Amino acid sequence: MTERREAMMLQTIRLSEDRNSLIILDQTLLPGETHYLHLQTAEEIHEAIYKLRVRGAPAIGVTAGYALALLGSRLQEDSKDSFLTALRKEKDYLASARPTAYNLFWALARIEESAKKKLTEDPENIEAAREAMMEEAFAIHREDEDICTRIGEIGFSLLKKGDGILTHCNAGRLATSGSGTATAPMYAALAHGWGREDFCVYCDETRPLLQGARLTAYELSSAGIRTTLQCDNMVSSLMAEGRIQIVFVGCDRVAANGDAANKIGTSGVAILARHYGIPFYVCAPSSTIDLSTPTGREIHIEQRPGEEVTDMWYKERMAPQDIEVYNPAFDVTPHELITGIITEKGLVKAPFEEAFRSLF
Amino acid sequence: MTERREAMMLQTIRLSEDRNSLIILDQTLLPGETHYLHLQTAEEIHEAIYKLRVRGAPAIGVTAGYALALLGSRLQEDSKDSFLTALRKEKDYLASARPTAYNLFWALARIEESAKKKLTEDPENIEAAREAMMEEAFAIHREDEDICTRIGEIGFSLLKKGDGILTHCNAGRLATSGSGTATAPMYAALAHGWGREDFCVYCDETRPLLQGARLTAYELSSAGIRTTLQCDNMVSSLMAEGRIQIVFVGCDRVAANGDAANKIGTSGVAILARHYGIPFYVCAPSSTIDLSTPTGREIHIEQRPGEEVTDMWYKERMAPQDIEVYNPAFDVTPHELITGIITEKGLVKAPFEEAFRSLF
Repeated sequence: MTERREAMMLQTIRLSEDRNSLIILDQTLLPGETHYLHLQTAEEIHEAIYKLRVRGAPAIGVTAGYALALLGSRLQEDSKDSFLTALRKEKDYLASARPTAYNLFWALARIEESAKKKLTEDPENIEAAREAMMEEAFAIHREDEDICTRIGEIGFSLLKKGDGILTHCNAGRLATSGSGTATAPMYAALAHGWGREDFCVYCDETRPLLQGARLTAYELSSAGIRTTLQCDNMVSSLMAEGRIQIVFVGCDRVAANGDAANKIGTSGVAILARHYGIPFYVCAPSSTIDLSTPTGREIHIEQRPGEEVTDMWYKERMAPQDIEVYNPAFDVTPHELITGIITEKGLVKAPFEEAFRSLF
Repeated sequence: MTERREAMMLQTIRLSEDRNSLIILDQTLLPGETHYLHLQTAEEIHEAIYKLRVRGAPAIGVTAGYALALLGSRLQEDSKDSFLTALRKEKDYLASARPTAYNLFWALARIEESAKKKLTEDPENIEAAREAMMEEAFAIHREDEDICTRIGEIGFSLLKKGDGILTHCNAGRLATSGSGTATAPMYAALAHGWGREDFCVYCDETRPLLQGARLTAYELSSAGIRTTLQCDNMVSSLMAEGRIQIVFVGCDRVAANGDAANKIGTSGVAILARHYGIPFYVCAPSSTIDLSTPTGREIHIEQRPGEEVTDMWYKERMAPQDIEVYNPAFDVTPHELITGIITEKGLVKAPFEEAFRSLF
């Protein structure tokens, strides 16, 4: 009954009070060590993004926004053109940290655009451009937090006291600047005063990269939420024992018909939930809904190196040499298995395509 | 197209030609190293059983049978009573190697009984008792091999060329003295001349103990069978892609109504197979069918230490400290999800209880 761990709500990214450094939680040291980095130089920020010390599309976007605003605020150039040229140089350098991260470019472009706009209005006022960039960075951060909070409130309205919640992978605080997507209803429950006796969360460890064990179990238990870890193959057993009342998962991309691509294993969880009569919800910022992709069949699934399954994390290789390995990063959950999709704009139910079009 | 690995049919246990040592494959070194141990003394055999160098109920039974026959053949006592007293001492010592292994006691008792029976018929003839024990050990081995072979032939009759077969955990050669149970149809296919282009096997890695990755993938690929390894959470994706045509799993215990307890994760595979319309077969020696247990609800499921999930095999702990862990060793697959149970006496289909009673 002694709860010695102090509840700690992890904050993935923030700007220091003097607005001179970016403070991020170093996710490469989790779950062993909780260490915040104070990043000041372009090189330090570039390294943190490149080395995945910060990860998750929304979190990378927020980091990039603050990073360019902070570096821009230090530029000494005092004419519009020289300032924008120097800013572009900083932007290109940051963009090179993860060349495939869409949110990185998107956030950097928003910051650059805010400076350009201000300097078009008032070409002499470099200081106003610096302030506009900082405002834009805060706006990106606030928008991300708001999306999480709204998803959380909608998800929370679906919970009953005593519920056991299952989640897969990490669509949590550590992937966003707010309360996550799939985890947002859990943090909302905390905010509404629910305690350890009111609900509990079961985290799939999520092989092969173990985001559930390393990240989700870590962030939820740090926040004081009652958290249990299990292997991915134990979900059926948990459901058969009546321990799970609701499933929340995140998603990487939703097709127009509601098919949802998410971390490998998600579609299996959805099938088990259907078998046991348990509602299955996908938590999706509306930015992940892609109306130009008709169905999940058109979503390309990346195959990743076999070593992630056979060698990664282990003291020694745990499989015979030269074995073929099947290691897709994602799978597609067919819309028929999804009880509802929770976006920041509302809860969407089937028929999804119609609902999406009326929502946006 | 170059197949450099030499196909190698692993033999888990055999007696040396001079009948003076027991040759076992050291399973603790797999999959890194294929090393056979030549055990001669009681201490060496005891250590091999205790340290799980040989594992799997049938394999332990066969080992124990040879071990006591071999040790008994060396006893110098020349009267019935002194011989049986010395034999009992060897038996008790071997039995202490794994005090919960039913097959260990069962096999040791069969060997002792064969000596007693011979000495009751002919109290002076110690040599005949020694021979009877050796015959009994060979009989235990042969019976185990025959069961595997028969299960294999029935399973093979269910295969079509081109099939992708899924299996979970290790109910293979390494757990028996023959071709395994769930793997027996695959070895039968080899024996019928099927090659790498005719069928392939997908092995679930089977967290947390990784028997699929370490043992099944190893033994099947060593035998030249086309083998792919995947994480447990990738089964739905494999089935959705149409790669799996049939599932074979082993089992630890079958209740009278056909509910089958097997390695954790098996019931989830059965639910996915049903969802995708794929036949799901349980391979079960008739000795595992327990008519005194009415349903799966009466089967006790062992919870194992959380460290198996959070620490085992890893360079460092892969979960936060003090996290609750759910780690049942087995789950129960309800009989409704089982297409058929393959025993050495025939293929059993629903209603199982009726079929079992007519079979035995």
